[in-house]
Amino acid sequence: MSKIISIETSDVRFPTSLELDGSDAVNVDPDYSAAYVRIVAEDGEAGYALVFTGGRGNEIVVKAIESYGQLIVGEELDDLVGDLGAAATRLVHDSQLRWLGPEKGVSHMAAGAIINALWDVAARREGKPLWRYLADLTPEQVVAAIDFTHISDALTPDEAREILRRGEQGKAERIAELEQNGFRAYTTSPGWLGYSDEKMLRLTREAVADGFELIKLKVGGSLEDDIRRFELVRAEVGPDFPVAIDANQRWDVEDAIAWLAPLKRFEPFWIEEATSTDDVLGHATIRKAIAPMRVATGEAVQSRIIFKQLLQAQAIDVMQIDSVRVAGVNENLANILLAAKFGVPVCPHAGGVGLCELVQHFSFFDYAAVAGTQDDRYIEFVDHLHEHFAEPVVVTGGRYRAPQQPGNGAEMLPDSVATWTFPDGPGWQELERRGLRAATRTAR
Amino acid sequence: MSKIISIETSDVRFPTSLELDGSDAVNVDPDYSAAYVRIVAEDGEAGYALVFTGGRGNEIVVKAIESYGQLIVGEELDDLVGDLGAAATRLVHDSQLRWLGPEKGVSHMAAGAIINALWDVAARREGKPLWRYLADLTPEQVVAAIDFTHISDALTPDEAREILRRGEQGKAERIAELEQNGFRAYTTSPGWLGYSDEKMLRLTREAVADGFELIKLKVGGSLEDDIRRFELVRAEVGPDFPVAIDANQRWDVEDAIAWLAPLKRFEPFWIEEATSTDDVLGHATIRKAIAPMRVATGEAVQSRIIFKQLLQAQAIDVMQIDSVRVAGVNENLANILLAAKFGVPVCPHAGGVGLCELVQHFSFFDYAAVAGTQDDRYIEFVDHLHEHFAEPVVVTGGRYRAPQQPGNGAEMLPDSVATWTFPDGPGWQELERRGLRAATRTAR
Repeated sequence: MSKIISIETSDVRFPTSLELDGSDAVNVDPDYSAAYVRIVAEDGEAGYALVFTGGRGNEIVVKAIESYGQLIVGEELDDLVGDLGAAATRLVHDSQLRWLGPEKGVSHMAAGAIINALWDVAARREGKPLWRYLADLTPEQVVAAIDFTHISDALTPDEAREILRRGEQGKAERIAELEQNGFRAYTTSPGWLGYSDEKMLRLTREAVADGFELIKLKVGGSLEDDIRRFELVRAEVGPDFPVAIDANQRWDVEDAIAWLAPLKRFEPFWIEEATSTDDVLGHATIRKAIAPMRVATGEAVQSRIIFKQLLQAQAIDVMQIDSVRVAGVNENLANILLAAKFGVPVCPHAGGVGLCELVQHFSFFDYAAVAGTQDDRYIEFVDHLHEHFAEPVVVTGGRYRAPQQPGNGAEMLPDSVATWTFPDGPGWQELERRGLRAATRTAR
Repeated sequence: MSKIISIETSDVRFPTSLELDGSDAVNVDPDYSAAYVRIVAEDGEAGYALVFTGGRGNEIVVKAIESYGQLIVGEELDDLVGDLGAAATRLVHDSQLRWLGPEKGVSHMAAGAIINALWDVAARREGKPLWRYLADLTPEQVVAAIDFTHISDALTPDEAREILRRGEQGKAERIAELEQNGFRAYTTSPGWLGYSDEKMLRLTREAVADGFELIKLKVGGSLEDDIRRFELVRAEVGPDFPVAIDANQRWDVEDAIAWLAPLKRFEPFWIEEATSTDDVLGHATIRKAIAPMRVATGEAVQSRIIFKQLLQAQAIDVMQIDSVRVAGVNENLANILLAAKFGVPVCPHAGGVGLCELVQHFSFFDYAAVAGTQDDRYIEFVDHLHEHFAEPVVVTGGRYRAPQQPGNGAEMLPDSVATWTFPDGPGWQELERRGLRAATRTAR
């Protein structure tokens, strides 16, 4: 037995706004950042987690993680790791903190970070990467980790257990296959709005040559540009190569329908975030109007309660879970099982910093233990900032390769954390000396 | 012209968990708290605002207000107050901070606090209480303050303008009437779950004697208790006196329908927060199942986008706006106009600390300039903590009396702020000496 003695946080920011990597119609100048946390027990055992942000405001999430962390300082780590369902419920439903959400935004992401750090400990204890740790749980153990509050009208514990029991058939073979062949990736690298047509086409060619079977373009800045860019890319890749588009919530419902009409002829593989991520009914209206174009969303969906409604309203064809937006592993287990219940494929959101490292575990688990198929399923991949992680993702031949190291993938290199701690790390000091001011410096 | 030079914040908490005031099925031990802010210009001009919280986590909101405040430090106050629509948009849609929501939770409430402080300045400059300042705006000025992003499928600027134009008829008379007779209140004071039956009945009698025409009971702890309590209250007030009930999101959809069946015979005036505030479809399902019982929600609704859907889905009969949950005055103007468009009455949420002082302005404005009627409309009233405000609410004869002092009502007494600043104010030190540990002390 060993008590948790500290919650160590770091405000880590990378000056990505100095390039235009990651620019889209809404996120015009992100500085990819991580509110990074390490929970430490008195015997030295540690778990890691992070919340991704766009730069400014990372300090708010750091503060929130510290506050949620105080709820478990002094507790026995074994008690928390021994019942991760109870641990998550206690954090998410804290009687006073819940007013800040409930279950949304900064407070929810912060609770998620603490919860994810506890899962990191659990997986490390068994010497397994998180996906494998999850895949080896019994259906009963998975169900015990899920909070069915406010989703039981769409998914009951019994239904979840049944889905997981069906997933046990062939699980060992699928795990072996994942170890050998990994999971299909798609890439957004060519499609950022800040890129020239030349750069976009060069990166498109590279993506195809690298073996990716789906690429994604950002849209929603200017319709004229969108048509030109899509036409160029379509000419480059041919009529049958899947190309998805992503509007990052840029449109109102009627705008979306009007804007998408002239893009239909390029046969987008899906349209992502066509409107507000909170607008379940809006997504349903758009989906009906633009059928058979497929509708995707999820990277900013705040909780299982919104995903439930997106499924109930037949508003989405693709569920794009994010690894650090919701209340940790537990809530993503709920999301994956909701998707399975409604027969909608999960294609996780990634990119930013650490999101690829973290989210891959969910697709690997989904294939091994839930969906049992990779049809229509891809994990987003963006080739940024992986070098800062203890186990950077490996994507070769257009596929994520199975992570091998124990844990959830969030651990960063101590040097990277120190260099890019904002605002006083040596990386930031060096930029200051050179007169380079990333957008995140606007407010400290 | 005068630049904003500082954003002064205070973490103010009241040890209300030491009593059981404010206890319900979900918020079992709140310490009513305010993340309090004063923005100050170099010539000394100031504006005030606050965000209400349940205690723990107040420090997170304080931090977030400081971060949003940094976006306007150094700006000309005149520029911001001169275009409050642009000011709000800039804060709410900040390209990096928006990732923390978008438009929900801690970050949204913090943006709202800064926005509300700017409106406070605007109203003070004209020497008017906020409601009167708003009522005197032209339809064009109100519309210019509203962000129609993601609601234009339900309410266009033209429709909003038209509603406001109709509201101009008889406005002067309604303002005079408000000055004289105020606006109807209802009270939750008798109904907290922590109270004994005797205390509940005594407070019920007092409420009726005080002239309240609607009272509210908390439900959702135990069905047996709910039936007993409602039966006692019904016997006390008679068959025709309106009694609303409030479950504070305690139930899943099917639970709500089952739990409410045996309460139907007491003819609740409305059922409030029957399930997750985020569950638009759930509210719609419940409303259909329990008709003709009326469904209310809103105190935790994160944004106009959720209210829009609650109205589109015919999920609510009553819109309960909160003064400090959404992005300030601007977003509540949107909410009030959405309600008017759909013909749903606005009955604001209040209580906590400062919520009565703040939210009354919206009902006064709604009557004067939008709805033009008080039918089916009440402002919640709870008699707690008003003594800490520069202009405490006045409720007599069951009616809110028109606030008179310039501004939005958020200004607190400097002594109260100092005494109850957490954790080192003299009020908290005194409790510590006496060995009284409010729930918020669990985490600092």
